[in-house]
Amino acid sequence: MIQETIVTTRNLSGEAHIAPMGIHANGGELVILPFRPSTTLDNLLETRVAVINYCDDVRVFAGCLTGRRDWPLNCAEKIKGQVLAGALAHSEVEIVRIEEDSVRPKLFVKTVHEVNHAPFRGFNRAQYSVLEAAILVSRLGRLPMEKIEAEIAYLRIGLEKTAGDRETEAWGWLMAAIDRFKTGRSA
Amino acid sequence: MIQETIVTTRNLSGEAHIAPMGIHANGGELVILPFRPSTTLDNLLETRVAVINYCDDVRVFAGCLTGRRDWPLNCAEKIKGQVLAGALAHSEVEIVRIEEDSVRPKLFVKTVHEVNHAPFRGFNRAQYSVLEAAILVSRLGRLPMEKIEAEIAYLRIGLEKTAGDRETEAWGWLMAAIDRFKTGRSA
Repeated sequence: MIQETIVTTRNLSGEAHIAPMGIHANGGELVILPFRPSTTLDNLLETRVAVINYCDDVRVFAGCLTGRRDWPLNCAEKIKGQVLAGALAHSEVEIVRIEEDSVRPKLFVKTVHEVNHAPFRGFNRAQYSVLEAAILVSRLGRLPMEKIEAEIAYLRIGLEKTAGDRETEAWGWLMAAIDRFKTGRSA
Repeated sequence: MIQETIVTTRNLSGEAHIAPMGIHANGGELVILPFRPSTTLDNLLETRVAVINYCDDVRVFAGCLTGRRDWPLNCAEKIKGQVLAGALAHSEVEIVRIEEDSVRPKLFVKTVHEVNHAPFRGFNRAQYSVLEAAILVSRLGRLPMEKIEAEIAYLRIGLEKTAGDRETEAWGWLMAAIDRFKTGRSA
């Protein structure tokens, strides 16, 4: 099962890095699969720890893809790390084993601490529309524009019916990114 | 903003009813909009209370649409009501105002008690696929089968990439419901 989360890591100088990441969960086992090369992978190999943030604010997902990486952070409790202030819950984890891979090494982690900050508020279709649109934006230039536009048209239906302010703002950032890409291409 | 939740109500004899329901949230205000006629509406008008369950087990959503309504319940804490045992969080609410409507009256409710049972685990694209497929199943006979099949094909992609056991099971129930509908129609 893949959970879409926000992973926060730090380098040895203490500089934080925030990245949306699909975590693989098999029973109690968690696996982080950062791409090679990436800041998240470098930081994890340097410090051996990370925070997995379970966050329902889709602006963080859309923001990280569109140049908005500056989200409020708090100190982790049991590891040298940082927690996304908006997370509903978070897990502080340590690497226990690495399975090497030239594209996406598998970092098996164990949870050393877990905090449940605020309740889940139910599914929101607009949040998923934003997530799916963010995945499309991350593949601009690799997917045909016709496919992207058709999927965006479909995702917009659930968005317009159910979004709150955060979802509408995040969607706007993604649509602007698609527009910029199209303008750049046709220029 | 619309949150997809499971609403549990009881009639005056104490018989529980479980129904997936989109709750409208505007700031702190919550509105339940049950269709007329429905057991949820009858129960709410009789007892004036309900439990809104924030549940990430998509089997409950798919199950209620496919004849599987028997999910474990616990007693609510502050009202005469029942809480879905699998809910990550729940709100116990009371009606404060009703806006009449011939199709979907608006029941404005206030939260009298709230419990955060277990942490949110991040977004899961398969859960969204199941929810959207459940909406399609609820509209069988009102939407063209070609549209349903095209959307199911799209939703299946995220499902197959990210599902856990619960999502796979729920998806299977929905696909069986579509198959039964098609067989019935062509027979």
